[in-house]
Amino acid sequence: MVIILKKDPEKEQLANLINWLESKGLSVHRNDGVSHLVLGLIGDTSKIDMDLIQALDIVDGVKRIQEPYKKANRKFASEDTVIRVGNTQIGGGTLTIMAGPCSVESEEQIIAVAQAVKESGATILRGGAFKPRSSPYSFQGYGAEALRLLSLAKQATGLPIVTELMELSQLELFDDVDIIQVGARNMQNFNLLKELGHQKKPVLLKRGMSATYEELLMSAEYIMSGGNENIILCERGIRTFETYSRNTLDITAVPALKHLSHLPVIVDPSHGTGKVALIPSMAMAAVAAGADGLMIEVHNDPAKALCDGSQSIKPDLFARLAPRLRALHQVTHSEEVTE
Amino acid sequence: MVIILKKDPEKEQLANLINWLESKGLSVHRNDGVSHLVLGLIGDTSKIDMDLIQALDIVDGVKRIQEPYKKANRKFASEDTVIRVGNTQIGGGTLTIMAGPCSVESEEQIIAVAQAVKESGATILRGGAFKPRSSPYSFQGYGAEALRLLSLAKQATGLPIVTELMELSQLELFDDVDIIQVGARNMQNFNLLKELGHQKKPVLLKRGMSATYEELLMSAEYIMSGGNENIILCERGIRTFETYSRNTLDITAVPALKHLSHLPVIVDPSHGTGKVALIPSMAMAAVAAGADGLMIEVHNDPAKALCDGSQSIKPDLFARLAPRLRALHQVTHSEEVTE
Amino acid sequence: MVIILKKDPEKEQLANLINWLESKGLSVHRNDGVSHLVLGLIGDTSKIDMDLIQALDIVDGVKRIQEPYKKANRKFASEDTVIRVGNTQIGGGTLTIMAGPCSVESEEQIIAVAQAVKESGATILRGGAFKPRSSPYSFQGYGAEALRLLSLAKQATGLPIVTELMELSQLELFDDVDIIQVGARNMQNFNLLKELGHQKKPVLLKRGMSATYEELLMSAEYIMSGGNENIILCERGIRTFETYSRNTLDITAVPALKHLSHLPVIVDPSHGTGKVALIPSMAMAAVAAGADGLMIEVHNDPAKALCDGSQSIKPDLFARLAPRLRALHQVTHSEEVTE
Amino acid sequence: MVIILKKDPEKEQLANLINWLESKGLSVHRNDGVSHLVLGLIGDTSKIDMDLIQALDIVDGVKRIQEPYKKANRKFASEDTVIRVGNTQIGGGTLTIMAGPCSVESEEQIIAVAQAVKESGATILRGGAFKPRSSPYSFQGYGAEALRLLSLAKQATGLPIVTELMELSQLELFDDVDIIQVGARNMQNFNLLKELGHQKKPVLLKRGMSATYEELLMSAEYIMSGGNENIILCERGIRTFETYSRNTLDITAVPALKHLSHLPVIVDPSHGTGKVALIPSMAMAAVAAGADGLMIEVHNDPAKALCDGSQSIKPDLFARLAPRLRALHQVTHSEEVTE
Repeated sequence: MVIILKKDPEKEQLANLINWLESKGLSVHRNDGVSHLVLGLIGDTSKIDMDLIQALDIVDGVKRIQEPYKKANRKFASEDTVIRVGNTQIGGGTLTIMAGPCSVESEEQIIAVAQAVKESGATILRGGAFKPRSSPYSFQGYGAEALRLLSLAKQATGLPIVTELMELSQLELFDDVDIIQVGARNMQNFNLLKELGHQKKPVLLKRGMSATYEELLMSAEYIMSGGNENIILCERGIRTFETYSRNTLDITAVPALKHLSHLPVIVDPSHGTGKVALIPSMAMAAVAAGADGLMIEVHNDPAKALCDGSQSIKPDLFARLAPRLRALHQVTHSEEVTE
Repeated sequence: MVIILKKDPEKEQLANLINWLESKGLSVHRNDGVSHLVLGLIGDTSKIDMDLIQALDIVDGVKRIQEPYKKANRKFASEDTVIRVGNTQIGGGTLTIMAGPCSVESEEQIIAVAQAVKESGATILRGGAFKPRSSPYSFQGYGAEALRLLSLAKQATGLPIVTELMELSQLELFDDVDIIQVGARNMQNFNLLKELGHQKKPVLLKRGMSATYEELLMSAEYIMSGGNENIILCERGIRTFETYSRNTLDITAVPALKHLSHLPVIVDPSHGTGKVALIPSMAMAAVAAGADGLMIEVHNDPAKALCDGSQSIKPDLFARLAPRLRALHQVTHSEEVTE
Repeated sequence: MVIILKKDPEKEQLANLINWLESKGLSVHRNDGVSHLVLGLIGDTSKIDMDLIQALDIVDGVKRIQEPYKKANRKFASEDTVIRVGNTQIGGGTLTIMAGPCSVESEEQIIAVAQAVKESGATILRGGAFKPRSSPYSFQGYGAEALRLLSLAKQATGLPIVTELMELSQLELFDDVDIIQVGARNMQNFNLLKELGHQKKPVLLKRGMSATYEELLMSAEYIMSGGNENIILCERGIRTFETYSRNTLDITAVPALKHLSHLPVIVDPSHGTGKVALIPSMAMAAVAAGADGLMIEVHNDPAKALCDGSQSIKPDLFARLAPRLRALHQVTHSEEVTE
Repeated sequence: MVIILKKDPEKEQLANLINWLESKGLSVHRNDGVSHLVLGLIGDTSKIDMDLIQALDIVDGVKRIQEPYKKANRKFASEDTVIRVGNTQIGGGTLTIMAGPCSVESEEQIIAVAQAVKESGATILRGGAFKPRSSPYSFQGYGAEALRLLSLAKQATGLPIVTELMELSQLELFDDVDIIQVGARNMQNFNLLKELGHQKKPVLLKRGMSATYEELLMSAEYIMSGGNENIILCERGIRTFETYSRNTLDITAVPALKHLSHLPVIVDPSHGTGKVALIPSMAMAAVAAGADGLMIEVHNDPAKALCDGSQSIKPDLFARLAPRLRALHQVTHSEEVTE
């Protein structure tokens, strides 16, 4: 970390700052320039809150050299993380396709969808049991019963399952779940993240609607620092001024996160766009940008299960899309263009 | 709610939509215009997810007439909510000033700050015990011990206390806490909100960094629908492209939220700006815009307690600011200018 | 357009509103619902300012059915616009690659780059003559001299040229230019747009940094309403809270704009990311999402021409990227996945 | 400027960078730290494009010490700029109130409004002649005729006038105009800014919808570097995700801009909110935050002149608001609270 001080800083404040930094175990190298003074810090600066130093009177700017995340950092682990689940894997050159309904509604529905998406090439089954809804009056998912139905679909198809956990007390119901999803609204629920670091299941961590890449990686770090290093990062759209799509799917997150971190990165074009018509194009874009996978909502009867199905595509559209995604992955994955 | 359909909607889809709406207990009034068809819905539409209808093929647009929040809605309770805590109140013409350190550090510190801010005119003591930090390696607050010290400060000064709760398991430690704060990052931690609806203490609900006014009010509704109607809304800055201040303090939230809801609205200029130099001006602006109160970080030794103190103002600046805020409140509160 | 009125609107205001709407040549259909009154407007509502009606006391909401743009609207011209320039075209299934330096610097440079990019598969030469720079102290481009050098490169290679026009007085220098670029900062310079509607050259219109899709299409409409319908839309990144990339390249703009309009859509990953390392992935993503083309900065000596070259890729990287973009276009363009 | 390099930068690239910096007239001080290398630059770095250095392979970060604006910079001119117009002034402790209709419509209208707002305490008359409208089909203002009517209102009341100029060719019509307004959409129309630097009239420069404080000050610098230092900065709302108000009025811009620059800062709550109900509160907030003035739309018959009047307040509301703004200014201006 480099701290750039204002011209002629007040001496006592400067001494206080240096003492405090040294008390944190850092060695402080002072470079007196002609027009400004720069402090270079050597040591583990991940504990230092940059915003807070920035706010000091005598400080003109702070620039981190070492990213505040360590275990999630590409610099300290150049090899891509590969996560094995059931007979499949996420990362390491595989294109993972997670598909399934927004909400698990019945045994018939979930098994039919699971079989359909498996046949089309999905490798993991998604399905909502506990649903985060912005209104207390909206349907909140079938909870434990939905988890039981997901297990049946897993038995029927062999597909591993991923579903969202909203609070820690639900964890005891997740025995048969293969990947625990943390939703965008819980991306900075730090207590939840910490506890997920103390269990073994892989975690699919969705990016918060206004989270920076660094904040997403710091949330991954919360889980990893507890001992669980099997994290899948998921871009699902950020909040911008544009209202045509529900969110703005930030495809740049794919190459950026893969550059900053060794963790696998997937994209959710269903929530990221909120419009069925945009999903195929954006799924294709995600794969072309280098994503390790996709999470796509598929529902067998959007017209009947009206609301839960409206941002879902139907199995027949999925059946045409999935092979095209795999063909595209072949073309783009074969050989990367870098400097 | 009004649903505007595309020209010549597919008949089966239209019938499905109408059936589904009626199954939700709504009566559907169909208005056939020359160039479009409009469905007017009568009944409680708060359970209907507007985004999802919007996503249907046959739908051109949806416009909510009735807001999706009920208990928080100004329309159904024109009287301002007034929340009584200890010997003071929030709302109802009072200017509430909550002040205190970012983190509670020691008995000496918290009692000194509590006495100082009380003398200058603060009516509620704030202080952090459990701290949400974006890095797992940063100081996370003294937890239970800090709560004990806050109680001592409360006894010494008579000031009611407000502090943040990060997860439900901490609630048993909050017996002596007067107002439970829900932080911006937990604004959509729906399970936490629900549980806070089942207890009696007032809740100070901070707006999420990218939450709309409606989403903030829906989160209040989660708590209120459980039975606890003592909610204080808090604007603390939103995320925008401007990086000079840590967040962009959205002062418009004050008149807007007071127009939409009967709940009291306070402003946190400390987190909202992240810069000591901006706090006095923005505190003044909040009062002039009609805020019911302020939450301001005050620390007795920002130079020593470096990091936790850097966005805090010192007691002597607070001592000059608080009376000016009260004078301003006198001027602006005496007579409102409305159409 | 549908206007939803507040319950029991003040009669005189309502009569005024209806009279005013009728005075604009619209017929007003009044639908009295049980809980609200809806006005349906028939006629050309493109002249009606929705924001302003929205702001009226008696109005609860306004919903446009008919988009405010007409000539740019897909609904009124289902066939894709194809723009012919020199021996090539933009739109209609072609993948257009525009490449060249940020600034034209010398005859040697521009001819070398033009030859290199042509050989690798570029079909149009880009090069900056008049440069919009946020600082008055920065290099502003070589102007007329640069235009002369671009002409020489065009003669040498046969590539049509595209370059930015910053004000109308420069138009007389653009005789040999094939496509006039309007920069993001001038996207709502309405006087400039109007004048460009009265000349014949195709216009490449870049999206403003905080412009919605509708605003971009309205700016296209300004040009088209003057008589020039040869507009190429260009996504080049929007402003968000994320600071890792210079802007957030909004790939969703590609399928969205192609759905809303018949105009060709290209993507500029150089300005949209500001980082060489992200350009190849984002160029691939744009093609996979269905873009009609790309605009890429290529410089033959970024190390020497330091500043103008830093977000540019080198000819050898371009030589590896361009054929991959064409291969990808083959795969993705052959068959589209739609509902 | 401080450039922080990546560990072990490639030698040739480093030498190229240093040579290039020196060729720009800077002296480069090299500080070799244990884990990183820092280059400190001495000299006029305002010509250096920080983004572009940031994009170099060998660079980890760039931190500007010296702001890129000079003439607009508070550091080089600690005294507040005061701009005299007619018998009034902007800045220097005065509260300037600019009021008048969105569009000038008739002699009767503009003279009636001018007399009304003067009586209530406005010191400058605003009125639209050339109107930037997002649709080519919307009313674009009465142009030259409106300017003639503004002159009549000026003669009748003695109020100086401010109105928007959209392109340079209109300047010859502005003889009797006292302050030239540059709209938000033209804030980075650099050719227009340059030309306004070569004439004498004060310029009211509105902040672009997604412009940072630094970009606004750089646009002021464009005008000032041409010789015209009479610039009034105007905050008028930025684009965010919140849709309740038309824009998000950024009140923090007031103390921030006054800290960064010596130029006067005013606020436009009419365009910044787009809702009459929010204007009084936000006008009060702006004054409390330290604004030098306000620009408020006032129309004598919003019901008749429907569209142009809808975000305007009526003269009687203005007559109640203006004295309260002056009373507030007395209270807040008497004594500032700073560290």
